[in-house]
Amino acid sequence: MDNDVLAALQALVNESSILIGEDISKHYTDPWSKGLTNKPLCVLRPTSTIEVSNIIKICNDRKCGVVPQGGMTGLVGGGIPKTDEVVLSLERMNVIEHVDRFGKTMTAQAGVVLETANTSAEMQGLTMPVDLGARGSATLGGLISTNAGGNRVIRNGMMRQSVLGIEAVLADGTVLESMNTMLKNNAGYDTKQMFIGSEGTLGIITRCVVRLQPKPQSISTAFVGAESFDQVLDFLVFLDDELSGGLGAFEVMWPNYYQFVKSTCPKLKLPLSDKHQFYILFESLSSNSGLQSNYFETLLENAVTQGLIDDGVIAQSLSDRNDFWAIRDGVSEGFRTLSPMFTYDVSMPLKTMNYFANQLEKEMTSFSSRAVALVFGHLGDGNLHVVVSTGDGSDLEHNKINDIIYGIVSRLNGSVSAEHGIGTEKLDYLSWSKTAEELEVMKSLKRSFDPNLILNPGKVLCLDT
Amino acid sequence: MDNDVLAALQALVNESSILIGEDISKHYTDPWSKGLTNKPLCVLRPTSTIEVSNIIKICNDRKCGVVPQGGMTGLVGGGIPKTDEVVLSLERMNVIEHVDRFGKTMTAQAGVVLETANTSAEMQGLTMPVDLGARGSATLGGLISTNAGGNRVIRNGMMRQSVLGIEAVLADGTVLESMNTMLKNNAGYDTKQMFIGSEGTLGIITRCVVRLQPKPQSISTAFVGAESFDQVLDFLVFLDDELSGGLGAFEVMWPNYYQFVKSTCPKLKLPLSDKHQFYILFESLSSNSGLQSNYFETLLENAVTQGLIDDGVIAQSLSDRNDFWAIRDGVSEGFRTLSPMFTYDVSMPLKTMNYFANQLEKEMTSFSSRAVALVFGHLGDGNLHVVVSTGDGSDLEHNKINDIIYGIVSRLNGSVSAEHGIGTEKLDYLSWSKTAEELEVMKSLKRSFDPNLILNPGKVLCLDT
Repeated sequence: MDNDVLAALQALVNESSILIGEDISKHYTDPWSKGLTNKPLCVLRPTSTIEVSNIIKICNDRKCGVVPQGGMTGLVGGGIPKTDEVVLSLERMNVIEHVDRFGKTMTAQAGVVLETANTSAEMQGLTMPVDLGARGSATLGGLISTNAGGNRVIRNGMMRQSVLGIEAVLADGTVLESMNTMLKNNAGYDTKQMFIGSEGTLGIITRCVVRLQPKPQSISTAFVGAESFDQVLDFLVFLDDELSGGLGAFEVMWPNYYQFVKSTCPKLKLPLSDKHQFYILFESLSSNSGLQSNYFETLLENAVTQGLIDDGVIAQSLSDRNDFWAIRDGVSEGFRTLSPMFTYDVSMPLKTMNYFANQLEKEMTSFSSRAVALVFGHLGDGNLHVVVSTGDGSDLEHNKINDIIYGIVSRLNGSVSAEHGIGTEKLDYLSWSKTAEELEVMKSLKRSFDPNLILNPGKVLCLDT
Repeated sequence: MDNDVLAALQALVNESSILIGEDISKHYTDPWSKGLTNKPLCVLRPTSTIEVSNIIKICNDRKCGVVPQGGMTGLVGGGIPKTDEVVLSLERMNVIEHVDRFGKTMTAQAGVVLETANTSAEMQGLTMPVDLGARGSATLGGLISTNAGGNRVIRNGMMRQSVLGIEAVLADGTVLESMNTMLKNNAGYDTKQMFIGSEGTLGIITRCVVRLQPKPQSISTAFVGAESFDQVLDFLVFLDDELSGGLGAFEVMWPNYYQFVKSTCPKLKLPLSDKHQFYILFESLSSNSGLQSNYFETLLENAVTQGLIDDGVIAQSLSDRNDFWAIRDGVSEGFRTLSPMFTYDVSMPLKTMNYFANQLEKEMTSFSSRAVALVFGHLGDGNLHVVVSTGDGSDLEHNKINDIIYGIVSRLNGSVSAEHGIGTEKLDYLSWSKTAEELEVMKSLKRSFDPNLILNPGKVLCLDT
């Protein structure tokens, strides 16, 4: 049967579109893994939608699982194949078809890399709505199928908010073209929504129309300290009111995170002492007009005067800005000292975040005397990242810590996955954030779109064949 | 059978929750109709989700159609019942449960009126993300189930962009609670998307979580004239770059619209002569900080200097602002002189809009020597409204004009419904904006969610039982 699929696929595509055996590099099996990985039956690298459709038809007829892949930058195993499956990499479908300066849209194939797309948008004075660390590898199709978040969510929303159109290949090979380019289109159901964030389990995204944003003319960045969580929340409200749509980032670090960075990353320049309770990195994206040259300074002075923050430093150069962001983003050197460690990406109502951090500290301390739990993240988006280490990297330990963290999240009506998705990593915890009725609707959608269960099997949800 | 449903419903709900026969006012049958309207079997006015669920179960068991209703402000017949159907009005489910100042969310029942919601949001320094003329009647459930547009789309997007959570009752009475309050939640499929914009045909929305926006601190309004469509587009790009997220409206009127207003609405104050080719009403929503007091004036001066616009007037008072908007919104007096007339709500790529207007003029003139066709609308959103009159109000004439207008729209890959939805009015033209494959997916979703076809039957799409 496996041979039958392989033979049919080999007969279908030309040699440059298929990789088999030794030619399948680790990039396609599990780039993050340190150990042995599963070789799929083959890796297909089509260059056109019709090719994707023909591949899917063959796999559907033979009930062979298909794992779609973009840049392989996902963090929950959503693109990792099993040995009896076929990998479908969209990497060669990388044509930017059109940028519309007036409609502010980009029409492109799914395999276009985010950074490439952004360069192309910037040539027209526009910018991509999302940005994230993996910008040099992540593809548009991957960003859409995982509903990516990143650094600009507070301003532009998740990827879903910026997807105007999609072309997707369904499980039976049907090409569903919904390449809408308009901001407004209420003609019937918005079927493309089903393919956004469903991690390739309902269809394969082959092309898309993305809404672009005007490129900000200037970015102001500050790093400030606050003494209480109430101050943090009030400061966020203050910035929201003062900057309105201009708030471009609001990242918060809890004190033990800052102290940890201080002690483990001696190369990083710290703009403030480690005596504050909360550290906030925020940015204002602004346009050409109307801004007093010193408005950002005045803003900070007002915040101090009103008792919202205690101290703050404004980036005076790009190098300052990079230094500030390095405290939030560039601490892998420090994290290595925690290895083995586990990382989390959770969301919850803003008001409950400090309770979460305190409760996490309490429960982790009582769980293990060696526990370190660092909390930081996109607070303005309701999204926290957590890094936990107890010195034990076993699956058993991992599961126990999962239970602690997702337990708190679940009691706060939060989400076990804010931006990374479910993939296989979080499968067991999906029901902690979804009701039984929601899971039933998911299963019924899956069965309706993919009756043979060939699309990214075992990802996001489990169904028996 | 009809009696059986009615008896079962009467046994279920208390007397105040059901209206029958003479007690059913025109509000529930067709508030816009001038003629006789269909009385439904009964009108149910539940006050709780569990009541809705029990009603739906009875109707589903007996395969009786249920027409959900909000404020009955829709324009495409989506809430109009047939005689063998039951009306389910959400009007008494009008409790605002919670406003979260920090998370910027409102949790409410579906029957809350937009204006009431906005008042409640403003008490916390926030504002509803959508605004439209029917704000005094339209309900949250209606806004969500029709994915409403309105006056703030250019800034906040359609209603879909602001819906974080939904509670919906499915066709079998299941209560699907997806009352997410977070900006980021990638735990599994975002099933609530299916209920947004599907006009009550896949489930009945009973509660929701809406994302609020910071209340703008000040609004600047201007009315300007431009000489070419290229200027209009360049001016939009200019404003986008200068105001970035601050552009709050960009409404364009074609010259014959302005001349029509001048000749038929003598009471309106016109800020500019009727010699321009295009008229633009735009607004900048701004925050407290950083704005030079004269920035808006400078902005306009720069636009004139750069040759983007020819002339412009800035509103100096709320009364000026109202006068400007009256030219765009308050011309019903003028429209009455066109009666009988037909109105349209279409979208298309921005670049093609002037071609659309010219082609419309050409085709309408050749269709009827008495044709008047006025074009105006939310150009910044890609959305135009069209008013057409030939002096003949017959269905036959209506269909012929539909064919002309939707024909042009379809050739431009536009949408036959930008913001009003499909309802029954645009059913015959849905296929002009959707591919056969999209229609098949819609049908398959409908069959999967509503196998007995009881939810708002005959709206949005037609299926045989």
